[in-house]
Amino acid sequence: MKSHRKELWFNVQGRRGFVNITPQVEEALAESGVREGIVLVNAMHITASVFINDDESGLHHDYDKWLEKLAPFNASGDVYHHNRTGEDNADAHMKRQVMGREVVVAVTNGQLDFGPWEQIFYGEFDGRRRKRALVKIIGE
Amino acid sequence: MKSHRKELWFNVQGRRGFVNITPQVEEALAESGVREGIVLVNAMHITASVFINDDESGLHHDYDKWLEKLAPFNASGDVYHHNRTGEDNADAHMKRQVMGREVVVAVTNGQLDFGPWEQIFYGEFDGRRRKRALVKIIGE
Amino acid sequence: MKSHRKELWFNVQGRRGFVNITPQVEEALAESGVREGIVLVNAMHITASVFINDDESGLHHDYDKWLEKLAPFNASGDVYHHNRTGEDNADAHMKRQVMGREVVVAVTNGQLDFGPWEQIFYGEFDGRRRKRALVKIIGE
Repeated sequence: MKSHRKELWFNVQGRRGFVNITPQVEEALAESGVREGIVLVNAMHITASVFINDDESGLHHDYDKWLEKLAPFNASGDVYHHNRTGEDNADAHMKRQVMGREVVVAVTNGQLDFGPWEQIFYGEFDGRRRKRALVKIIGE
Repeated sequence: MKSHRKELWFNVQGRRGFVNITPQVEEALAESGVREGIVLVNAMHITASVFINDDESGLHHDYDKWLEKLAPFNASGDVYHHNRTGEDNADAHMKRQVMGREVVVAVTNGQLDFGPWEQIFYGEFDGRRRKRALVKIIGE
Repeated sequence: MKSHRKELWFNVQGRRGFVNITPQVEEALAESGVREGIVLVNAMHITASVFINDDESGLHHDYDKWLEKLAPFNASGDVYHHNRTGEDNADAHMKRQVMGREVVVAVTNGQLDFGPWEQIFYGEFDGRRRKRALVKIIGE
């Protein structure tokens, strides 16, 4: 069994943003030499997501608005007890649960085994600092 | 390491629906010959889900109503910018994030290693056309 | 390829609760002898979750309140058809979908390959009875 590990680093300038990381995951897969197996891609931070969906800017606008409705930003400790610790990012911990921590993708013939529109995104919900995702590949 | 790949095809007649695919995944597992490992099952489309829950029609009714409340269908581009592209399925991209893209199931002694009520479903949120899920099995 | 399987059992006294299971998963990993691979941890029940987030009590309070807002408890069959079957836990099936069934964690150099704050939790949404999670480890 082969395995390969790679960290991808981000510094999203705003509080929130989506970054298409499909090319970086494909590059890590090529480096691994794995032809059959799986790729795990996960956020290494608990206020960020890795998810698979469409690379369409209107949809990203809609996701952002929808997540803000499901779990609104509120820095005060009146709404979110987590923010009584000095943090202001409780909402980001919730948005991340909706969008998910990780994806697992099949590798077939050395390629990400994707449907026609699948693209991998890093979803940032508490940015303006360096954060990272992990790519772990196992197989043969 | 052994690996096995299979596509499962669907044509859900309504816009939304849930299909129990546990028997097809078990069949793919039997074909694979894998005794110890994991099964990945994922939607290959970004407006559909694969998830594990109960095969109970009342619950499926409840999921449908609940998802419609969290992310209502609205074909116009006034609410969802994604629908300004000519699509009408922005809500389906959100419903899919709540229910998830994929499941990873342990394989033990050649069987899906399940608790008493676990069943695998394909969740369709933008149906009335042929779509598919991927089964990828790795192990020994 | 090595594989290792372990069940973790819980009896959360209230209806809902979060249990940090990181030490038990680390123990299972040490038993497995796996140095490079993945760990799958999943709820074996469909009204419970396994997820990764922060071990901070204020955040857990916030998650509980937020989930109750997204999918309120209501024992009657008027709101949730699932509860017409004699159950009262339809809300728990929804809370579980938001928080997720499973996590997949990379194993590197014999350790859980985690970012600085990642901890694994069992999330109970219909407790007061014995329930369990599955740890499955594959690798070399």
